[in-house]
Parts: sequence; C-alpha cells; structure tokens
Amino acid sequence: MKIIDGGITAAKGFQASACEAGIKYSGRTDMALIFSETPCESAGTYTSNIVKAAPVIWDRNITDSEKKVHAVVINSGIANACTGKEGLTYCDKTAKACAKELNIPEDSVLVASTGVIGMPIPVDKIAYGLTLLAPGKNSSKENAAAAARAIMTTDTMPKEIAVEFTIGGKTARIGSMCKGSGMIHPNMCTMLSFITTDANISKELLLEALREDVKDTYNMVSVDGDTSTNDSCIILANGEAGNEKITEKGEDYETFAKALRLVNETQAKRMAGDGEGATALFEVVVEGADTKETAVTVAKSVVSSSLVKTAIAGHDANWGRIFCAMGYSGAQFDPEIAELRFESKAGSILIAKNGAGVDFDEEIATKILSEPEVSAIINLHQGEAKATVWGCDLTHEYISINADYRS
Amino acid sequence: MKIIDGGITAAKGFQASACEAGIKYSGRTDMALIFSETPCESAGTYTSNIVKAAPVIWDRNITDSEKKVHAVVINSGIANACTGKEGLTYCDKTAKACAKELNIPEDSVLVASTGVIGMPIPVDKIAYGLTLLAPGKNSSKENAAAAARAIMTTDTMPKEIAVEFTIGGKTARIGSMCKGSGMIHPNMCTMLSFITTDANISKELLLEALREDVKDTYNMVSVDGDTSTNDSCIILANGEAGNEKITEKGEDYETFAKALRLVNETQAKRMAGDGEGATALFEVVVEGADTKETAVTVAKSVVSSSLVKTAIAGHDANWGRIFCAMGYSGAQFDPEIAELRFESKAGSILIAKNGAGVDFDEEIATKILSEPEVSAIINLHQGEAKATVWGCDLTHEYISINADYRS
Repeated sequence: MKIIDGGITAAKGFQASACEAGIKYSGRTDMALIFSETPCESAGTYTSNIVKAAPVIWDRNITDSEKKVHAVVINSGIANACTGKEGLTYCDKTAKACAKELNIPEDSVLVASTGVIGMPIPVDKIAYGLTLLAPGKNSSKENAAAAARAIMTTDTMPKEIAVEFTIGGKTARIGSMCKGSGMIHPNMCTMLSFITTDANISKELLLEALREDVKDTYNMVSVDGDTSTNDSCIILANGEAGNEKITEKGEDYETFAKALRLVNETQAKRMAGDGEGATALFEVVVEGADTKETAVTVAKSVVSSSLVKTAIAGHDANWGRIFCAMGYSGAQFDPEIAELRFESKAGSILIAKNGAGVDFDEEIATKILSEPEVSAIINLHQGEAKATVWGCDLTHEYISINADYRS
Repeated sequence: MKIIDGGITAAKGFQASACEAGIKYSGRTDMALIFSETPCESAGTYTSNIVKAAPVIWDRNITDSEKKVHAVVINSGIANACTGKEGLTYCDKTAKACAKELNIPEDSVLVASTGVIGMPIPVDKIAYGLTLLAPGKNSSKENAAAAARAIMTTDTMPKEIAVEFTIGGKTARIGSMCKGSGMIHPNMCTMLSFITTDANISKELLLEALREDVKDTYNMVSVDGDTSTNDSCIILANGEAGNEKITEKGEDYETFAKALRLVNETQAKRMAGDGEGATALFEVVVEGADTKETAVTVAKSVVSSSLVKTAIAGHDANWGRIFCAMGYSGAQFDPEIAELRFESKAGSILIAKNGAGVDFDEEIATKILSEPEVSAIINLHQGEAKATVWGCDLTHEYISINADYRS
C-alpha cells in the first residue's frame, strides 16, 4: 500500500472540477463536482443531529437505495439547513440542473452543502456553477486539488489524500477530499468527506467497511463539541480497477478496509489539527480501560474540555484539568490508580501516577507541549481496552473566527 | 420577603472573617471563615465528578451525619484535589487547627478549597491563617463582604446576598456567599456556595429544600461545560430566629423554600454572568416541551455550545447554531415546528418559526443581543414543560484567563 497523488481523482474513472459560482463568498471558488461516467455503488454515513440539513435527507434517500451514483455536487458558503420545506426543493433543482449538464439520471446526483445555517440556497447561482463544472469544460483528472479547495469554509488548508494497493492481482485506489473545521464533534462533523475508489466491491460491503471505519476515525474527532446538521461521509466505488468483485469478507476485503483506514484516519487527524483557530493537533489516548466504551467516553471528555484545550494552547501541563474531565465523563473507573503522560516529538514525560501528580520537570513538559502535535496518554490500569481521539487546542483565533463568522 | 444587607452574616448568630494567608496568591486575601457559636444543622450537595477533591469527601461525611456544625474554613488558590491520600490529611489538620482556635469539636468543622488541582495544601499557612481568622480577632458581623472576596479565584466580583422573611410570626434570614467562574457546568460547579440561615428547621427538611432548589438554580448554570472536582453547596441553620421548628412541609416550609430560591437563583445567575471572560449573561428558556427533561436537555445543549456562545459574544443573531445545538442535544422533538426569539431589555424579536428563519431585522436583533443580559426563548410547541438555564458568552478573555491560569 502506498500513498499517491491525485486526491479525489486518483481512482480510475473519477473526474473533479471547481468553480466560482458566487453563492456567498466572492473572489474564491465555492462549488465542486465529483463525476464518474461509470455508475458507482455508494454508501454514506450522516449526522446524528435530529436537525438534518436537506442534502443529508436527499443523499440518504439515494445511498440507502439500490440506485447507482454518477455525481456529487458540493457548495460551500451556505449549508441549506433549517431552510424549511424549500430545502429539499433546492436539492431537487440542483440535481436536475446537474443531470441536464452531465446527461445522467437525476437520481444519480448527490448534493452536499456547508456554510451558514438558515439561509436560502440561490439555486440560479448553483445552476450557473454547474454549467462551468461539466466535464469537457473544466472537469478533469487534474482538478482534484481545486475541488478540495472549493469545499473549504473556515478550513485553513485543503485536505486530500490517495492510496494505491493491490487486490486480487489488480491495482486499485482510494482517494479522498474532505473539509471540516468548525462544528466538529464525534458522530460526524461538518465535515464533508468524499471518498472515491475504483475497487470493485458490493454495496453491502462498501457500507459495512465505511461504517466500521468511520467509528474509529471521523467519529473520534472533536473540535468544539458541536455536531453539525450537515455531516456527511460518502464513498463511491465504480469498479474500474477490474478486480474480482469483493462480495464477502476475506483477504481482499481486509486489504480494502486497511486502505480505507489509512485514508480516513489521515483525513480525520488533519481535520482535528486544522480545527478552527487551532495551533496544535491534540491526541488523547486512553489505555488500560475495562471496556472500549469506557476508553472512548473518557478520551472524548478530555479532548472536548474547554479548560484542557486552553491549557494545551498555553503549552501548560495543567494536568488537574485532565483528571477533572476524566472524572465528569460519566465513565466509571478508579481515579486513584490512573496514570497520565504527555508525549510529542520532543519527548515523553510522566505527569501523574496513582491519581496524584509526580514531581515532573515543568520546563520539559512545556517543551513537549509546544509541538504542533501533542498527545495525552492516560492509563486507567483496569483492563486491556483502548481508544484514541483527536482534537485541537482552543485559542483566541477560535473566538475571532466564530464571534462574527456570519457577518 | 425583602433583600437585605449582610450577606453570609445577615442571619442571626453568624460571623465571618477573611485574611491573607499567602497560600498561593500574594497581595490578596485567600482564606475565609464562617462561624456560628450556636451549633448548626447542616446539609450539602456536592460534585457528581468521580474525581472528588478531599474537602468534598470530608464535608459529606459530616453533613450526611447527625453531627452539628460550627464553622466552615475556606481557602482559595489551591483546590486540594488529586492530592492522593494526603488530601484528607490536609482536611484533618485544617479542622484540628480551627477547632483549637475556636474551641469547638474537630468534627464540627467543614472545609472547602478552590483553585489549582494537583498541588499540595500548605497546611502551615492554613494554620497561620486560622490564627488570624478566629472570632475576637477579625471575625465579625461586618466581615461578610471581605469573606466573599477572599474565596474568589477568577471571579471578577464577590457574590453575596441576603433576604429577610417571616415564618411562624418570627423574622428569619437567609444569607449567602458563593464563588464560581471557571469549571462551571450543571451538576454543581466550582462553585463553592455557602448559605446560612437562622431559621429553625429540621435537618431532613433543610436537605430536601436545598436539593430541590439546587436542581433548578445552580445545576442550571453552565459556563464552560467542565464539572469541577470541588463543587459544594452547603447550608447551615442555627435556629436563632426562634420560630417553631419546621419539621414538616406546610406554609412555613414553603416560605423558607421561596426565600432559598430567591437567594440561590440570584447567585446562580451572577455566577453565569461572571463566567470567565464573559461580557453577557446568556439565558436560555425552553418552553412548550413534552417533558421537563426534554426542556432541560435542549436548553443545556444550547447554553453550552461554543458556537452559540461565540455568536452571543459577537452580538450575532446566528440562529442556525441554536437549532443545530438543539438538534444534537439528544432530546427528541420535532424541529419543523420549533420557534425561536431573542429578548433583552432592548426588546424582543422573532427569529425563526416552523423550523426555518423568518424575515427579521438584523439591526434590531444585534441591538437586542448587545445588552449585558440576553435571552433565547425557544418554543418547541409540543407540550407544557419548561426549563431555564444560564450561561455566558465565550470571548477572547476566556482564552487569556485559561491558557495560562496555572502559571
């Protein structure tokens, strides 16, 4: 398995494009298209928020059916959430306009939106954008990076990756682009994540692989505790790699799942590290838990704590806040035997043992916490279960971004 | 019922004092004493965090027993949490020193600490402080304000209040001082709250009144979602008002409960409004819920959302974030019929109806949201249940306070 270039278009038969449709932003691209002439099997996982944006409802209807997918139309700037009954009408009009431009069935078009909640989608601008996005105009193999950029909102960098691997003697690829920076929390984030693969795999296994993977990757990310209305993670598989179709679990499925994990874990960590205003990726590992559930609960509580996050921003080994967040997580464990260490490229340092602080060197701790990627490693000493979650520090910049994001 | 001066010493027979013991801060007071020569019935509610500071364990042992209480010793600067087995030894030494100075039984002394987690308590400084606090030195009726100031950490103002009311033909009083600004979240905060009353009331009813009241007052406050290791709300009743002892529910009990509500609700709102870095008290009211639980869940989710809190800081009517936070709260309701309005002294404005935005005047909304006390009023239109919670906005100052609080 190796990492290759090409992002969302690395897999055979996938094209992408981006354009400036002027939906809300000016002077930047704000629409992207993913297209496969070969019809794709699709699978999706979506937000658990009961306030669901219209595109989430639209896409779920399609990916949960037997329908084949050809295209995904994405816009940034406006989320098409809390738009009342009109919301689905915007999706319908978008799909119709796309179907016409690309000469594909209307119900083979997925849509995704990210941005401000509660504003109507200017469908005329979307339709205009689609005339620019159609294949033969600017859609091509080379536009993956442009597409990854067009779907950004407060992200500071585009996020794309692709891997190549062999299944059944054939070379296959998985590519991905995603965005996500604010409203990021376990149970899918806003977070739009698109994954394409030319592997030949059944719809059932595609969905199972995605679901299993999202649990340990995207759903382990928290930037600010807000679970968005628009979170979507969608995978398309067009089978162009020509491998014998994966229809049951076995070596090929495992290889595919491993490649998918590499793609999604990389993207999940990038989202966390690019959290709004973040200066550091903050990883929390809980080991020695009695159950996986305990490990996840404790880890998420620590990574989500505003007080822990501000301490990380200040490179301050204020470990009491970590114990405090562990304690109010709701998980049951014995704080009197818990252990904590900080780790980064600059080293590893034991901070607390048996529920109380040890005599550690503050200067070394600060040095370790000053790296762009830092980890808190907690050992509960109660069992074998483990979980890893990713978040980021909480900084002035987060406030600046969000105190007037809409204006 | 009327509001009177005197704070924690307004009730007959209670004295207070404050001193500079040099525990961690310098140039400010950091210890306080509450004292009643007449032995008091006591009741307490404490943090739900499983990592409990030693004073919480110490106090619960006493307030849950039949023992009578004479004094509470409070220090700020160091929390005496995550201090291992030594933690309770510090409490014991503090109680012993206090008992000796005041000539009272050791097990009639409650202790409370607030500040940095994980540091040892300098017991010698506490003992020195106690020599300054003893009655006849600077403990008196007039030191209530000084005591309220000495227990502050990142609070920007002392919080005291007292009320006077009549029960059984006698005049009685309830006074309170509390502190709390960071680590504030439902289920008791750090938050230390002390209440004194001269009402004559049985221990059982004192506890019941406190428990019932805390549910709707202190437990409805959230500043940053962190539930502290030290949260304590303690009430002492010395019976000096001379009313016939309240031993069952009835008119007298109701009067007492009403007075307690006024005291605690006022203090809870002050804590929220004085949240770390806050520029506004943010009240969220959920009406029309099917159950109280739904109302509380939805309201707490909104008041705790970082994205909502930053929008309030920016006086930005970014209502989509409110719907988003309602949606991921975990409560079940129909977002398509929900309604939202903003209110403050500057007016009231309808923002969203039937799950979608209405055409509101942004300038008026901004004006309403620029007041120091703003409310979001949500109507779920599904029943009669209601809840009110209090929080604050999330500002640059919160980051500044917390990124290097420990240093």
